[in-house]
Amino acid sequence: MKNLYKKSSIILGLSMIDLHDSYARLVYALFITTNHEKKRDDVISHNVQAIILAAGKSARVKTGKSKLLETICGQELILYPTRLLADLAIATLVVTGYQKEHIEEIIKKQHGDSITFITQHEQHGTGHAIACTQDIWSAEHILIINGDIPLVTADIIENLYTQHIASNATISFVTAHNTDPSIGYGRVIKKENVIHIIEAQEFHDDPAEHCCINAGIYLIKKTFLQKNIHDIKCNNANKEFYCTDLITIASNQNEPIHTITVPFDRIRGINTLHELWAAEHIKRSELITYWMNNGVRFCLPHNAHVDLNVTIGAGSFIGSGVHLLGRTTIGTQCNIAPFTVLDNATVGDNTKILSHCVISNATIGNDALIGPFAHIKQESHVGNQTVIGNFVEIKKTIIGDNTKAKHLSYLGDAQIGSGVNIGAGTITCNHNGIKKNKTIIEDQAYIGANTLLIAPVTVQTNAFTAAGSVITHDVPKNALAIGRSQQVNKEGYALTMQEKKQKKNESTDESLDNHTAQSFIGAVRTTHDASSTIE
Amino acid sequence: MKNLYKKSSIILGLSMIDLHDSYARLVYALFITTNHEKKRDDVISHNVQAIILAAGKSARVKTGKSKLLETICGQELILYPTRLLADLAIATLVVTGYQKEHIEEIIKKQHGDSITFITQHEQHGTGHAIACTQDIWSAEHILIINGDIPLVTADIIENLYTQHIASNATISFVTAHNTDPSIGYGRVIKKENVIHIIEAQEFHDDPAEHCCINAGIYLIKKTFLQKNIHDIKCNNANKEFYCTDLITIASNQNEPIHTITVPFDRIRGINTLHELWAAEHIKRSELITYWMNNGVRFCLPHNAHVDLNVTIGAGSFIGSGVHLLGRTTIGTQCNIAPFTVLDNATVGDNTKILSHCVISNATIGNDALIGPFAHIKQESHVGNQTVIGNFVEIKKTIIGDNTKAKHLSYLGDAQIGSGVNIGAGTITCNHNGIKKNKTIIEDQAYIGANTLLIAPVTVQTNAFTAAGSVITHDVPKNALAIGRSQQVNKEGYALTMQEKKQKKNESTDESLDNHTAQSFIGAVRTTHDASSTIE
Amino acid sequence: MKNLYKKSSIILGLSMIDLHDSYARLVYALFITTNHEKKRDDVISHNVQAIILAAGKSARVKTGKSKLLETICGQELILYPTRLLADLAIATLVVTGYQKEHIEEIIKKQHGDSITFITQHEQHGTGHAIACTQDIWSAEHILIINGDIPLVTADIIENLYTQHIASNATISFVTAHNTDPSIGYGRVIKKENVIHIIEAQEFHDDPAEHCCINAGIYLIKKTFLQKNIHDIKCNNANKEFYCTDLITIASNQNEPIHTITVPFDRIRGINTLHELWAAEHIKRSELITYWMNNGVRFCLPHNAHVDLNVTIGAGSFIGSGVHLLGRTTIGTQCNIAPFTVLDNATVGDNTKILSHCVISNATIGNDALIGPFAHIKQESHVGNQTVIGNFVEIKKTIIGDNTKAKHLSYLGDAQIGSGVNIGAGTITCNHNGIKKNKTIIEDQAYIGANTLLIAPVTVQTNAFTAAGSVITHDVPKNALAIGRSQQVNKEGYALTMQEKKQKKNESTDESLDNHTAQSFIGAVRTTHDASSTIE
Repeated sequence: MKNLYKKSSIILGLSMIDLHDSYARLVYALFITTNHEKKRDDVISHNVQAIILAAGKSARVKTGKSKLLETICGQELILYPTRLLADLAIATLVVTGYQKEHIEEIIKKQHGDSITFITQHEQHGTGHAIACTQDIWSAEHILIINGDIPLVTADIIENLYTQHIASNATISFVTAHNTDPSIGYGRVIKKENVIHIIEAQEFHDDPAEHCCINAGIYLIKKTFLQKNIHDIKCNNANKEFYCTDLITIASNQNEPIHTITVPFDRIRGINTLHELWAAEHIKRSELITYWMNNGVRFCLPHNAHVDLNVTIGAGSFIGSGVHLLGRTTIGTQCNIAPFTVLDNATVGDNTKILSHCVISNATIGNDALIGPFAHIKQESHVGNQTVIGNFVEIKKTIIGDNTKAKHLSYLGDAQIGSGVNIGAGTITCNHNGIKKNKTIIEDQAYIGANTLLIAPVTVQTNAFTAAGSVITHDVPKNALAIGRSQQVNKEGYALTMQEKKQKKNESTDESLDNHTAQSFIGAVRTTHDASSTIE
Repeated sequence: MKNLYKKSSIILGLSMIDLHDSYARLVYALFITTNHEKKRDDVISHNVQAIILAAGKSARVKTGKSKLLETICGQELILYPTRLLADLAIATLVVTGYQKEHIEEIIKKQHGDSITFITQHEQHGTGHAIACTQDIWSAEHILIINGDIPLVTADIIENLYTQHIASNATISFVTAHNTDPSIGYGRVIKKENVIHIIEAQEFHDDPAEHCCINAGIYLIKKTFLQKNIHDIKCNNANKEFYCTDLITIASNQNEPIHTITVPFDRIRGINTLHELWAAEHIKRSELITYWMNNGVRFCLPHNAHVDLNVTIGAGSFIGSGVHLLGRTTIGTQCNIAPFTVLDNATVGDNTKILSHCVISNATIGNDALIGPFAHIKQESHVGNQTVIGNFVEIKKTIIGDNTKAKHLSYLGDAQIGSGVNIGAGTITCNHNGIKKNKTIIEDQAYIGANTLLIAPVTVQTNAFTAAGSVITHDVPKNALAIGRSQQVNKEGYALTMQEKKQKKNESTDESLDNHTAQSFIGAVRTTHDASSTIE
Repeated sequence: MKNLYKKSSIILGLSMIDLHDSYARLVYALFITTNHEKKRDDVISHNVQAIILAAGKSARVKTGKSKLLETICGQELILYPTRLLADLAIATLVVTGYQKEHIEEIIKKQHGDSITFITQHEQHGTGHAIACTQDIWSAEHILIINGDIPLVTADIIENLYTQHIASNATISFVTAHNTDPSIGYGRVIKKENVIHIIEAQEFHDDPAEHCCINAGIYLIKKTFLQKNIHDIKCNNANKEFYCTDLITIASNQNEPIHTITVPFDRIRGINTLHELWAAEHIKRSELITYWMNNGVRFCLPHNAHVDLNVTIGAGSFIGSGVHLLGRTTIGTQCNIAPFTVLDNATVGDNTKILSHCVISNATIGNDALIGPFAHIKQESHVGNQTVIGNFVEIKKTIIGDNTKAKHLSYLGDAQIGSGVNIGAGTITCNHNGIKKNKTIIEDQAYIGANTLLIAPVTVQTNAFTAAGSVITHDVPKNALAIGRSQQVNKEGYALTMQEKKQKKNESTDESLDNHTAQSFIGAVRTTHDASSTIE
């Protein structure tokens, strides 16, 4: 048994890839049960009050922001324990300090006012952080949990509580096994019948022998805590008050201490970006495995990214490198091709999104065909059976069913009906230098290639625009709008040009070059009299 | 030896990544020999008849379709055993049931009428499936093989046959070793001198001890089969007839039974999407390793995808995330940059395809330069030394040598010569609202930027079009075609506008805003008299 | 200890992924120290002279070019040992042969004339290669190193030297442990007190027992070398002179021989593309781990590619699949989204580069917003707060601050000021069929959608162009330039067309179809009299 834990807890660093599968599946099964099906015993919520430690400086991530604001599968680290405790209906208090405004804002956005905050103004260690909360202790047992261990499941907390009560322990805490010498966890060590937790920087023994590590989750009787919280000393290198000293104090008093041991992967803490990545990798793998088990085929799953709040219908295919972000929802029997990024997108059933698309904050109907290289965003909607092709941008635009916009177009601030054909190169000129205006294209309209639609403008039902036209006023139902110049052919022009080019090559006159060139193709001033000469 | 097998057969789940390399190379070497070089002994084809079991419901994949229709490296699962047996010239019969139309259609497309089908109308288990085929048994030995084990090689079948004959066995079957408790394979167990295969759901012993598993490949004397096929009972939880009971029956009769043991990776079955992925990962790794060994450099090979029927020339480089699909062929010394997808594409020698391109059903010549962000499709051809640049779509278009189309163009249903220059923003208006027409651009033509070519239309040899022209009729050889309006400058216009804008900001009249804006940039109605006023 | 080495040196082939992490971090720490901080003892540079063996045929890579010209993280293989020795200030001589021009050119580009070359005209083995250099031996100790072992660190060389001197050895060489039978390294074997190195093709023993392998790095007393170099025999299968015979010769003479053992990963040689990939994977992982440890967050780091000379600021985020190539420099707090490729790009602080961008040889300012699908290249510069949107190509163009070019544009050979707005579909027609000309757009200018700018041309400060205009001559300050046709609506046109379509469907006259279509949308010849009829 010990062996199993050791095995499952090896940190493989950049090789996280090959972590945890058989284990993860097991744990994930529990996780799913935990969150969606199991009915909670609410004894725990009456007897337990939780304190989340979230005040630390995050010095080792070196990003300039609190690690608790970093996301794992789209959710900030700090919300993992808060949501876990909310699921368990345990009253929760968060100790904040470093970047407290940001952390509290995120928690409030998720939980409203249901969570209490205490500020630890100066960071003197976890023991000091707990002491700051003393006035608010009310439940019989106080659950203390580090804010940076996102993979903990409800089962672990429930199990800790059940065993804490059953063993009538004064302190219960969670441990795991890991022999890696490089990890920064406190080691649980028994010396002369007293249990100590030796912090990583003070541990100099053989990590293989002392492989029992402290997870940072404690359940403590309030009475014990009240009596002893101020007995913690700061006689260590960091001059900090460690809450882990409470274990030694209890042990010295012969108070009953209980531990539960869980797989290391479940209690991974995040102190570096390397650890953050490892934890996200595990979470992402669990999510992908979950969807695989529910009928979603992934081509190269180690390249895909799936956020926590995504849902995917059975029979859908997710290509290599696809990113499903935010609250993206994909229907059944869809095909999302490689390198496509969906962010808060809703996709209907049987829809095919080809490679290299970016769709954010938009909805796509059923049986639609999108991409490759389509970009749809900002509350746009694409209807059923509608085709959006390559190099097309759609912004704040509603498009009906059976419409086609297949090539090189920009459709912004527009309302487009059903059965419409949008020619290649169509541009809605929504911005006029002052504000944005709307373009309306009604059902069955046919927009010729390279049409410019100067908003506000309406092309009515069944109307047409000729290719290359600039549409500045409304096109009535069934009408054809034209706005372009007539073609004129200048015969033999190329031959004249070649002569000039020849001459230019023989001379050294640079201005001649440009003059030639301008009149050649570029600066030709067209007139509407076919007989007029080129300057 | 047993250890080796155990090691190579650990299921690592999402960590398939680190499976099988040293082993795979060995096996792949065999595979290559098997398929391309070795001369087959055709004794086997005279004495053996094969039955592929392909009638099952695929309940555990949860995609709503038979797992046998899913692809591995571009080939449907069911074609792996059918092609293997065809390579061995063994007459083959496929038992179909669930989604039989689709499965039979795919097999017929590959093999014509050379394979016989028997329908198992109701799925009563593998024993029942075999019984359904009884009328057609003709060869001396019947080879039974599950339809869902795509990684089996010809060597395994040949070895099974050779040993079956050498040992004069009544039944021979293939086994492998795997200690993973979570896998769903029958366990081969000897009790009181009788060999049993215990199905996964009925196996409750220690998987580490009973790690010999049944691969689902049996070679059975016809005479034994005829005598005993109806003695299989369905006294199990599923009320199914298991063909594995034939082993117990033979063992009870003291008939000689022979097994050959192969690496687990070779006989992986596909019951879940997780297992499908693992098998595809192995196949893909074998293919990539094969091309690596033949002079193709892959940058991040675990991100690339290569299908079964792809070929790649020596000295070529394949970037991260590249997908080579279908029957794609790449010449020598090519460079395929990251995130490019080639599907049934043929690429010549020394050609560079930059990142983020999509090329399907198209051919590209030698020394061409494509992309980034180019999209070439539907029987298009791009000539030698030709350059296709970014945001260019080419559809059903033939392009000659030394031609350039570098920016933001749509070329559809066109025929374009050699030495042509296609300006940025060129669009072939192939669709006129009723049907598609052809655009022809002859050698050395120069198409100015933003030219619209209204098909059917021809730009003849060495002709030019002025930038911004709409070309509605043919341009003769050496001519210049122009169709655009003359530029007029309205001096000080911006200052007037700023005043109006100012006023608008001071007022609350919304209509003024739009009026201002319209006349400002958008709805200006141009006239051709420079002195005309703006409305 | 031996176990540790065995473990860290298992070749996992396609599973390189899970190599080396805990080890790599350790070694990388050394590497960083070595290269950037540690002050070198320069005794070594006085007493040692290095010979790099770089003449071999690279037959096994099968790419048609010398493996030493292949890159690892953007640097050619051959430059790894040359730069290492230059860092140690050891005088270096390179023996070249196969493709010597290319190899010498690359070395000269990096090191100027500080490295001496000796040509080995015919490849008769490493012993022969060393003999070719005999005339130039001057230092007391000769360091011989294979050209194809890029992961060697300075510490290894320094340690080899220190121990060589301390042990007063005649020959010292580097070994590692590896039990993989498939690797192609010489085995260090002691038989009857004589040390031999048995080359891979002549080794037929148990690799698990004889797991000590020769790394290909030797430090030899010059006097010994001079006396014995010509005693090497070529009595082997390849008829080559192996320099490894020097070990046997020294051992037979009872000369003191010293070895240092290092992790296998550090001395991986490159004989195949598979080994090249493995070595690059290790180097890349080290680089990524280094940046992670310095505050850079990678989302799916096993998908990212980072070259040797890249730098990334703290707090920046690197998405999945991002390629950072050449001398790319990224500021602090940037966000580089998935599938973006930066090659010799310089990006300021707080800049966001969205997904699927390609930026090469360009600089981007601070607080800019680029992409998705933007392509910026060839000495372009994008200013602070500037926004470049989708399907926009920027080539040899300087853009000021606070400018916007958000959609479907080509800006080439242009100089664009600050506060400019570039409408969708804008194209600079820089090429006129003869040469490229410049477009100048001054501060605060507003370019309407689909404007064609025929270079050379200037749009002056605060000037405007109307959407759809072709700008052929300069636009003065504050002016509005217009060049487009007036819109005309043909009422009821669609109904007429539908009738014709109807008739066409009833007839079989193909020409009618085209005639109808042409006049329908395409070939309409516009006139400027609204009352004119369509032909």
